[in-house]
Amino acid sequence: MKSERFKIGWEKLKEVDGSAGENVVKSLKDIAPDFADLLIEFPFGDVYSRKELDLKSREIATIAALTAMGNASPQLKVHIQAGLNVGLTKKEIVEIIMQMSVYSGFPSALNGLFAAKEVFENEKK
Amino acid sequence: MKSERFKIGWEKLKEVDGSAGENVVKSLKDIAPDFADLLIEFPFGDVYSRKELDLKSREIATIAALTAMGNASPQLKVHIQAGLNVGLTKKEIVEIIMQMSVYSGFPSALNGLFAAKEVFENEKK
Amino acid sequence: MKSERFKIGWEKLKEVDGSAGENVVKSLKDIAPDFADLLIEFPFGDVYSRKELDLKSREIATIAALTAMGNASPQLKVHIQAGLNVGLTKKEIVEIIMQMSVYSGFPSALNGLFAAKEVFENEKK
Amino acid sequence: MKSERFKIGWEKLKEVDGSAGENVVKSLKDIAPDFADLLIEFPFGDVYSRKELDLKSREIATIAALTAMGNASPQLKVHIQAGLNVGLTKKEIVEIIMQMSVYSGFPSALNGLFAAKEVFENEKK
Amino acid sequence: MKSERFKIGWEKLKEVDGSAGENVVKSLKDIAPDFADLLIEFPFGDVYSRKELDLKSREIATIAALTAMGNASPQLKVHIQAGLNVGLTKKEIVEIIMQMSVYSGFPSALNGLFAAKEVFENEKK
Amino acid sequence: MKSERFKIGWEKLKEVDGSAGENVVKSLKDIAPDFADLLIEFPFGDVYSRKELDLKSREIATIAALTAMGNASPQLKVHIQAGLNVGLTKKEIVEIIMQMSVYSGFPSALNGLFAAKEVFENEKK
Repeated sequence: MKSERFKIGWEKLKEVDGSAGENVVKSLKDIAPDFADLLIEFPFGDVYSRKELDLKSREIATIAALTAMGNASPQLKVHIQAGLNVGLTKKEIVEIIMQMSVYSGFPSALNGLFAAKEVFENEKK
Repeated sequence: MKSERFKIGWEKLKEVDGSAGENVVKSLKDIAPDFADLLIEFPFGDVYSRKELDLKSREIATIAALTAMGNASPQLKVHIQAGLNVGLTKKEIVEIIMQMSVYSGFPSALNGLFAAKEVFENEKK
Repeated sequence: MKSERFKIGWEKLKEVDGSAGENVVKSLKDIAPDFADLLIEFPFGDVYSRKELDLKSREIATIAALTAMGNASPQLKVHIQAGLNVGLTKKEIVEIIMQMSVYSGFPSALNGLFAAKEVFENEKK
Repeated sequence: MKSERFKIGWEKLKEVDGSAGENVVKSLKDIAPDFADLLIEFPFGDVYSRKELDLKSREIATIAALTAMGNASPQLKVHIQAGLNVGLTKKEIVEIIMQMSVYSGFPSALNGLFAAKEVFENEKK
Repeated sequence: MKSERFKIGWEKLKEVDGSAGENVVKSLKDIAPDFADLLIEFPFGDVYSRKELDLKSREIATIAALTAMGNASPQLKVHIQAGLNVGLTKKEIVEIIMQMSVYSGFPSALNGLFAAKEVFENEKK
Repeated sequence: MKSERFKIGWEKLKEVDGSAGENVVKSLKDIAPDFADLLIEFPFGDVYSRKELDLKSREIATIAALTAMGNASPQLKVHIQAGLNVGLTKKEIVEIIMQMSVYSGFPSALNGLFAAKEVFENEKK
C-alpha cells in the first residue's frame, strides 16, 4: 500500500508536470520501479507540496537551474512545459533562460532556448 | 565617457546588489578595469534592466542557478543578499535553495544553505 | 512526532557518517530545520537503508562521485570519514580518488587526495 | 613497437570494456591515433591494472562518477556494460545510479537509469 | 536602428564563426530575437573585437573550455570550425582537445575528438 | 628506477609549473606517492612534451578550461603562474579569463580574475 506522501506526491506531480511526469514514471517501471516511488515521494510529496513557495516561483527556480546545469535536457523540457502548466508565460520562460547567459554562459542559454522552442512548438499541435 | 548602457547598468547594479555589487566593481579596478565595465553593461545594463521579468523572479532564478552550479560561492552570497534587497523573504530564499536538492543534489543545497546562514547573520549586524 | 523513516534514517546516518553527520544536522537547526529532517529521511531513511547494496559499495560510489563533481569539499570529507567508518581502508579510498583522474581530470583527483589527507590526519588525533 | 604499459593496458581494456572498448579505440584511428594509445596506456595500463582495488569496486566508482557528471553518456553506457562484465549485477548497477539522486540530483539519476535500460536491453539480444 | 556595437559584432561573428554563426542567429529569430542581438553585441561586439588577444588564441581558449565543460556540443562544433576559419590546423585542434584529458578527464576529450571528427568530415564535402 | 617518461615529465613539469609543480609533487608524498609519479608521467611526460602544440598555446587552453570549470582554484593559480613562465603576458592572461564570461558565465570569469590578481601580487614580491 502506498504511503500518504506518495498520494500527495502523485497529485502534485500530475498538477505540475502533467502527462510528461506520468510518462517518466511509466518509463521507470521495468528498470527501477522503486525509483519511480522515490521520485514521486521526495521531489513532489516532500518538496513541491511545501507551502513556503508558490509553484510559479518553484518552476522559475527549476528552469533556471536546469538551464544552468546544461546536462539535463529531457528534464529541462519537462519543466518548461511545467512552467506553462503553472502559469508562467512563454515570454517569462524565455527571459529566465536568457538571463542564464550571465551565470552559466551563452551556450547554456542557447541550448535552453532551443529546448523551449521545441516545447512551445509541441504545445501548438 | 561612459555609455547610456553603462549608466542604466550602474543604477540597476546598485538597486539589485547594493554595496556588494559596488565592492566587486572596485576590486576589479587594478586587475581588469574593462571587465568591471562589461559587468555593469551586459548583466545589468542589458539583462536585468529588461522589463519582461520582475526583479524578484530574476533573483529566484539566479539564486537557484548559483546554488545548483555549486562553484560560485561568493556570487551566490551576493545574490542571496540581492534577493533580500528586492523583496524575497528569508523563508523563500531558504526554500529555493532546499528545492535544489532535487535537481543538483543535497551537497549543493547544503552548501547553499550555509551561504544563506552567513548572509543572514551579517544582515543582523 | 517523527516518522518511521526518520527513525530509520537517523540510525543509518549515525552508523555511516558518525558525529560528522550529526554536526551537519545540528548546523541546519537555525537556518533550515525542515531540511535537516529531509536529509535524514530521504538519503538515509530511503536510500542508504535499502538492502540492494552494502554500505562499503555505497561509500565507494559516493566518494567517487563527490571527487568527480569537485564542488562539494565538505561533503567529500564527511564521506571519506564515512568510508573508513564502514570498513574501507585508507589505501582503497586513495585508490578510488586516484582513479577519478581518468574521468574528471587530475585537478579533481588532486583536490580529492588533499581532502583525504586532511581527514586521515584528523583520524590520528 | 608498443610499450609494456600498452600491452598491459590493452589486455585490461579488453577484460573490462570488452568490444565496446575496442570500438572506441578503432573510432579514434583516423582522428587521433596517438590518443588511442594514451587511452590504453594511462587509464588501463597505469590505473586499472593497479592491485589496490578490485575491478568490481573500480566499476562502482566509475559508474557513480559518470552518472553524477551527467555529461558523458556514451562512456557511462560503456561502463555499465563493463560493470556487468566484471560481475556487478543489474540490481547493483541500478542501485548505484539511484543513489546518485542524493549527490547530483534526480535528473542525473534518471538519465543514468535510462542509459542502463538501453544497455540491459542490448544485453538480451 | 542597430547600435555600433551590433555592427562591429556582426562583422566579427561572420569573420569567426562564418555561416554557422549566422545560422544560430537565424534560428533564434522566432523564439528570442532579442537574444540574437545580445549574442552579437556582447560576445562578438564587446569581447572578440578587443585587441588584447589574437583570434587564434581566442579560439584555443574557447575550444578548450567547451571541451572541458562537456555539455555544449553544438557550440563546440561551431568553434572547432571557427578554429579552422582563423587559422588553427586540424592537428592543433586535435592536440588542444587531447590535452583536456588531463584537466576534465578522458570522456570529455573523447567526446571533443568525436565532435572534431564530425566537423572535419563536413569540411571535406 | 624511474622510467624515461618520468624523466621527460619531470623536466617538463619544472619548465612549465616551476616550484609550484614541485610543491604539488612533494605534498603528495605521504598520501599518494604513486599519484605523484602518474602526475609527472601522464600530463607532463606524455601530453605536454608532445611537439604538436607550443607551450604558450597549451597554457592558454589550460587557463581557459580551469577558469570555465570553476572548481579547481589551486590548479588554476598554478597555471596562471605557468602561463607567465612560458611567456604569456599578464594582459593576455586577463583577456583569456575575461573571455570565459561568454562560455561559462560571469561568476567563473570573476573568480578567475581574482585568482590571477593573487598570483600577480605574489609575483611582485
